[in-house]
Amino acid sequence: MDQLELMSKLSIPGKTKMVLIVMDGVGGLPGPGGLTELEAARTPNLDALAERSIVGLSTPARPGVTPGSGPGHVALFGYDPIDWPIGRGVLEALGIDFDLGPNDLAARGNFATVDADGNILDRRAGRIPTETGARLVEKLRQIELPGVETFVEVVKEYRFVLVLRGKGLADGLTETDPQMTGVPPLPVEALRPEAETSAKLLNHWLAEARKLLADEEKANSMNLRGIAKVPPIPKMSDLYKMRLGAIATYPMYRGIGRLVGMDVLKTGDTIASEIETLREHWDDYDFFFFHVKKTDSYGEDGNFDGKVHVIEEADEALNDILALKPDVVLISGDHSTPWALKAHSWHEVPVLLWSEYIRPDSVDAFGERPCMQGGLGHICHPDMVPLMMANAGRLTKFGA
Amino acid sequence: MDQLELMSKLSIPGKTKMVLIVMDGVGGLPGPGGLTELEAARTPNLDALAERSIVGLSTPARPGVTPGSGPGHVALFGYDPIDWPIGRGVLEALGIDFDLGPNDLAARGNFATVDADGNILDRRAGRIPTETGARLVEKLRQIELPGVETFVEVVKEYRFVLVLRGKGLADGLTETDPQMTGVPPLPVEALRPEAETSAKLLNHWLAEARKLLADEEKANSMNLRGIAKVPPIPKMSDLYKMRLGAIATYPMYRGIGRLVGMDVLKTGDTIASEIETLREHWDDYDFFFFHVKKTDSYGEDGNFDGKVHVIEEADEALNDILALKPDVVLISGDHSTPWALKAHSWHEVPVLLWSEYIRPDSVDAFGERPCMQGGLGHICHPDMVPLMMANAGRLTKFGA
Repeated sequence: MDQLELMSKLSIPGKTKMVLIVMDGVGGLPGPGGLTELEAARTPNLDALAERSIVGLSTPARPGVTPGSGPGHVALFGYDPIDWPIGRGVLEALGIDFDLGPNDLAARGNFATVDADGNILDRRAGRIPTETGARLVEKLRQIELPGVETFVEVVKEYRFVLVLRGKGLADGLTETDPQMTGVPPLPVEALRPEAETSAKLLNHWLAEARKLLADEEKANSMNLRGIAKVPPIPKMSDLYKMRLGAIATYPMYRGIGRLVGMDVLKTGDTIASEIETLREHWDDYDFFFFHVKKTDSYGEDGNFDGKVHVIEEADEALNDILALKPDVVLISGDHSTPWALKAHSWHEVPVLLWSEYIRPDSVDAFGERPCMQGGLGHICHPDMVPLMMANAGRLTKFGA
Repeated sequence: MDQLELMSKLSIPGKTKMVLIVMDGVGGLPGPGGLTELEAARTPNLDALAERSIVGLSTPARPGVTPGSGPGHVALFGYDPIDWPIGRGVLEALGIDFDLGPNDLAARGNFATVDADGNILDRRAGRIPTETGARLVEKLRQIELPGVETFVEVVKEYRFVLVLRGKGLADGLTETDPQMTGVPPLPVEALRPEAETSAKLLNHWLAEARKLLADEEKANSMNLRGIAKVPPIPKMSDLYKMRLGAIATYPMYRGIGRLVGMDVLKTGDTIASEIETLREHWDDYDFFFFHVKKTDSYGEDGNFDGKVHVIEEADEALNDILALKPDVVLISGDHSTPWALKAHSWHEVPVLLWSEYIRPDSVDAFGERPCMQGGLGHICHPDMVPLMMANAGRLTKFGA
């Protein structure tokens, strides 16, 4: 019996409430003063909660493996992210709030410039402005394919999303981007027999699209990348027999939540608006995914102080969350984004688990080094939801 | 996707340099003064590095499982040693620097004494001296087998290696040693159909060999054990897209390095000569496997002070290694060989990881008990290479 089957077998409904607080990319590395972003932040509320909690460190995917945002969240939600990869096309569509269904095949599109012979001059079409991209997308919406619906959506600058919707579409398709200039885009090729039809449809679409844009100065061609379907991932709502609400300021995270069976709750751009949303929907759900984005953004920028500041903001919000009297709170991140690397990293992520039933350890601060001494030890991201469920009294005994 | 596939998918070439320092059997148990061999040793350089590093303890194979040298090293090199067993015949051949290829079937041979009825009197032929063994091996080299080459090599005393080389050889063969006296050696039997031909060839060889040695006083027969081919283990050089150099004073460790895709670098008998080799080849490789043998030898002898002394010698060598400015250093052992057990053991092995990008923990000494408090926690040997690769900037992100 695999882990998800086990959870499905053991989980029972209940009245308890769980909050999973995700500070995106929260894990860091020591800064100029020798402390990490999380250690340097003034976090009286997190520290006070840590004192009553059990803490530790968690590996999102595998030791040494740096996860993207997709795998990081899939792992937080209890799935082995190596077993449940999410294609770039799918993430790109989720990132613009596109409501992907099980019959959708999604690709990330990049406008490109080609010469008279069809060889690529610029893989990003001179980074055309978003308004130009929007005009081109409008043109591309004219293309009709036999037996499937098509959606073309603007993302940003030279990026767009193409979605084919219909029965019988399959992924297992090559990308068209040759990753170099001076050669033509590649055709889409099927890597397995089930994907033959999809390859034909996409190549047909590409031919039409290039005809339509032939007169464009810069964006007279395009590439498709990461062509993928939504994986048939079992929904958390079914596995755990509960109602889940996703609160996130960025569409991609809402999208991943929707993928795994969460209701996406309308919210604003700030942590304060997310708190408001949480309050509003408190009675409607068993489990809340509460996403704080900007820890990651500042990490990616290499902005130590910026990241510290967002952590301090999240610390303030924590009190508002605790005031709602949740039964279980877990605080962690999808991955580390240390300011020093300006990127996602492989480092373990601090994790804090509170409920009335945890065994408090002797750690009284929330930070990478305190968490090294935590009572949770070293866990893996997919362990978190089962631990939350157990603490919420929602997993029955295994065996007699 | 399994772990090796994942590594193969994520690894990228780079210019960084990694050194894996293996103190064979370094893990120990408390001695008369209450400290282990590693804790008792005066190791200012290891301790200073520990202060800037992250440390922990690592399980080579499985909790409670004592690995041989083969599995211990296979695990250090990033493979699950349970999935990739290496036969005794293969290790014996590697131990005499025999360059085993993929078409080779290797067996460990033991000369034995049998009576007139062919029943075994002595399974070790009275432990004949190595010179006698060498004379007998010379005789056995006369034997020719249809369609395959044969190699017979002396090891030590009553031990020799037999290698058949040719297409179509297969392992999955029983040993001939009945593990008792008063009965005749057993025939080689095929445990699977592909091995039938190999069984016939080996039985033919045994019959010829026994005829040739019939007049010997002591070594008038022999047994074959651990008949095995080199496992089709994916090479580290391919998986990780890097050049690897193995520096070891004992042939078996060089041999295991060669098996997994390392170049074996010519060196002498001492740690100092190994350092010299490392210096000479510093520019030629991305990853160095640097093996210190005698920690294990003294452990096997139950010689606490001897083992302490070798650790102190390795501590001095560490400075020479650091002077080369590696990007990543990992120090550990293939297994523990506590003086108190005079044997390999199942105990976890201390591990120290240094790079510019580790999160330093609060541990400032390298020893079993300090490592229990380390920030790495409890890892498994096959996690080490992925962690080194990550710290070397040689693993790309998984997923978007």
